[in-house]
Amino acid sequence: MAHAPEHPLDQATQLDPVGEHRWQGATHTAYANMVGPFGGVTCAVLLKAALLHPARQGEPIALTVNFAGPVANGPFEIEARPLRTNRSTQHWSLMLSQEGVPCTTGSAVFADRRPTWGAPESQPPPAMPDPQTLPAAPQEGRPAWVRCYDMRFAPGEEAFGLDGQEQAHSRSRLWVRDAPPRPLDAVALAAMADSFFPRVFVRRRRVAPIGTITLSTYFHADAALLAAQGERHLLGVAQAQVFRQGYHDQTATLWSHDGHLLASAHQMVYYRD
Amino acid sequence: MAHAPEHPLDQATQLDPVGEHRWQGATHTAYANMVGPFGGVTCAVLLKAALLHPARQGEPIALTVNFAGPVANGPFEIEARPLRTNRSTQHWSLMLSQEGVPCTTGSAVFADRRPTWGAPESQPPPAMPDPQTLPAAPQEGRPAWVRCYDMRFAPGEEAFGLDGQEQAHSRSRLWVRDAPPRPLDAVALAAMADSFFPRVFVRRRRVAPIGTITLSTYFHADAALLAAQGERHLLGVAQAQVFRQGYHDQTATLWSHDGHLLASAHQMVYYRD
Repeated sequence: MAHAPEHPLDQATQLDPVGEHRWQGATHTAYANMVGPFGGVTCAVLLKAALLHPARQGEPIALTVNFAGPVANGPFEIEARPLRTNRSTQHWSLMLSQEGVPCTTGSAVFADRRPTWGAPESQPPPAMPDPQTLPAAPQEGRPAWVRCYDMRFAPGEEAFGLDGQEQAHSRSRLWVRDAPPRPLDAVALAAMADSFFPRVFVRRRRVAPIGTITLSTYFHADAALLAAQGERHLLGVAQAQVFRQGYHDQTATLWSHDGHLLASAHQMVYYRD
Repeated sequence: MAHAPEHPLDQATQLDPVGEHRWQGATHTAYANMVGPFGGVTCAVLLKAALLHPARQGEPIALTVNFAGPVANGPFEIEARPLRTNRSTQHWSLMLSQEGVPCTTGSAVFADRRPTWGAPESQPPPAMPDPQTLPAAPQEGRPAWVRCYDMRFAPGEEAFGLDGQEQAHSRSRLWVRDAPPRPLDAVALAAMADSFFPRVFVRRRRVAPIGTITLSTYFHADAALLAAQGERHLLGVAQAQVFRQGYHDQTATLWSHDGHLLASAHQMVYYRD
């Protein structure tokens, strides 16, 4: 690995094989959330298990993680099982459990990427100031995992207004990278895809009980394009489409410093009034 | 059920219990695709299995389906297993297999919806002509399943240009409903969420070998809101964000006749040059 093994993300996604298709890991205090670990690091460690598997072929194309129940701080076991391997794609079943109880379930698709016709279609948001010109988002009073990211929001789009004055939209644009910096790879991207605060906090400008129930991340870049991003900030955009009856959706895009779409992520979030 | 049992969608999603968590079904010629069944009807029948399960609680919030391998025309078995039931959410593991080989895997989240603060955020596309004023999309030379939908595209946005002249975008807007008409429910919505032609056909204005590899559908409406839509056309919008190295994403939204977002769907599609 090109990065120092002591990076907190690498510590938090450290897995030891304990049997066929099975790994042992443990939650990491650096990525603690209000209750249990930050969901993004759970996504990252599930993906990591498939990446470590000796039968793995290709690179990640899609990762779906269902947050079925709380993860307690402490050890966990991951099962990563290749369900079907085709000529160019490989489908995975993923599960994180604690003491035999399923906490997080998921699936992943890996595939061989190859040169084809291609085209960008969406564009990164225009007129985003350079990250160096924007203040780092405050971290006091927030869960530990927030300190694992350097976030620099577009003026006026910082996630927590906390004045309770509902906005007309839930959009945020920000620069985000690992803190401390770490060269980008699929594991880091899988975690970062869940680093966008719940849109209900943004729309209502107040914090409330929430929980992501399912998240799907699509990887649009191969390892070479991720490596070319290095330790630079990624440009992130997140927005919801509808808040209704205790659930809202949320879509995020993550862009390279030079305007390539690296990942898109979609989730459904439970919220309480 | 309010609709006549002889509707092709109800025939195609007919399941017989064959054991705990297990159902038997069969592909239906009306929903045949180029190879095997239309992916949308596979999504619908996987969701149906969970809906039929005696332990099911609540309504669908999210459905992820991974198309791991081809489904052959003929009988199949579905396993729908509730992995974890919480106070307000229930997480499901889904699998469709044929002769013991996994063809399609998936997961679903069901939940109790309840009155809360809510807000729409995205808006349906403006200036869409009434469906009655638009021609029905041609069906000749297309797979059988296309005849199971009445599609009326916005002028100039019909999916198959077939002249091979690449467009600058892959967006389509259309009115769509089951054909023959059928009152809307979650099963029909799960199928319709995959009824949008692959965006690579639209962007390049030519047909090429493709396959959806994973699709996640988010349900934003309860049964009452779906029932209120009745047999009317839904307004659909679909667009890709990036085509790169043999894979493109695709996001679709489905809106009620009166502007409520009923479902959003995201998928990754494999394509060949």
